[in-house]
Amino acid sequence: MLTDELSLPVNISCTIQRIMTSAQLVKQITFIKEIDKLKYIQRKTKLFNSDRNENDAEHSWHLALMAIVLAEYANEPVDILKVVKMVLIHDIVEIDAGDTFIYDTQKDHTNTEEERLAAGRIFGLLPKEQAEELIAIWEEFEAGETKEARFAKAMDRLEPLLQNSSNNGGTWNEPGVNYEKVYAKKSAINKGSAVIWEYAEGLINEGVEKGILRKE
Amino acid sequence: MLTDELSLPVNISCTIQRIMTSAQLVKQITFIKEIDKLKYIQRKTKLFNSDRNENDAEHSWHLALMAIVLAEYANEPVDILKVVKMVLIHDIVEIDAGDTFIYDTQKDHTNTEEERLAAGRIFGLLPKEQAEELIAIWEEFEAGETKEARFAKAMDRLEPLLQNSSNNGGTWNEPGVNYEKVYAKKSAINKGSAVIWEYAEGLINEGVEKGILRKE
Repeated sequence: MLTDELSLPVNISCTIQRIMTSAQLVKQITFIKEIDKLKYIQRKTKLFNSDRNENDAEHSWHLALMAIVLAEYANEPVDILKVVKMVLIHDIVEIDAGDTFIYDTQKDHTNTEEERLAAGRIFGLLPKEQAEELIAIWEEFEAGETKEARFAKAMDRLEPLLQNSSNNGGTWNEPGVNYEKVYAKKSAINKGSAVIWEYAEGLINEGVEKGILRKE
Repeated sequence: MLTDELSLPVNISCTIQRIMTSAQLVKQITFIKEIDKLKYIQRKTKLFNSDRNENDAEHSWHLALMAIVLAEYANEPVDILKVVKMVLIHDIVEIDAGDTFIYDTQKDHTNTEEERLAAGRIFGLLPKEQAEELIAIWEEFEAGETKEARFAKAMDRLEPLLQNSSNNGGTWNEPGVNYEKVYAKKSAINKGSAVIWEYAEGLINEGVEKGILRKE
């Protein structure tokens, strides 16, 4: 005869439940400690009116609040909790894979094999179901096809645009960056929000007028 | 005869709508730029296994992800989006009021007049309705009476506990901090999650056993 949980005395059943909860919690705490490393991943862009580089954790926090504050401008109504989850986790793979400059011509910015392995390792620290949920959300963000992913990506493009335009050009001064490339990368904002894109386009044109973004 | 909006030609009505949207967006962008300053507010606690101080933006990002990952342990089911909003904004007032060490005996940690003024000034940069919503969420967090506020506060107490226990005591080594004070402050975790409190209590006791938290 097989022993199933129902046939166990209540106190033993409770003990098993507590051990299982505890094992699950230990996995989650391990993940929480691991992602602390995101605070060391430096981005190319600098804080507003500053020469101090932003790190990925600060950037992710900023995007989450931007998404909450600007949600009304999404092209279609979005599940804002999902957008917030996306932006909070979107750069976690960079703990292993590092930050890639958006105008880097040597390395593709998104969804490299290295990033996929990183997602498996880092989210894989969590209990299985939770790991699968966060990997799916990260993949959805990377694919950029759903309305939530499009709006999350719009936030990810908008923040450095605001920073560069307040920092005398910021990373627009890097070699190989010009109006055409900036315009092409930033136009992804339009897929998430036409209203915000109109504003962003204005900032890009203003950058050219001010001479802080090369036209050629 | 009064002219109302309906009697205006469509193109003028659209123009008015665009100007209003634009004015609203400019307020939101002003807020988004202002809160960048949270990245400069240093906390007493250090990153995990590190001697680098954490800043408020990184801390807020970490709490948001902790809340998402640990939501199942809340004493009562919570509106997780509200909890996430709470932790993302809970320290914004410190842009004006500065960080107060939790074991500071000279200054009350929460809800000072200085913080209330800061909330009015900073959230007040937003359009009225949004400012009111975020101030209400911040006040709800500070009061700590709803299930969401209790769970958000549990996250806020848990993160530095994890940091200190991984940092050879960390801020437990500051003058005047001992087991009794840590236990009293951290027991707020129990109001948000009994399961997490059991784990946290274990960490505190382990701190005493390891000699990194004074008992006297």
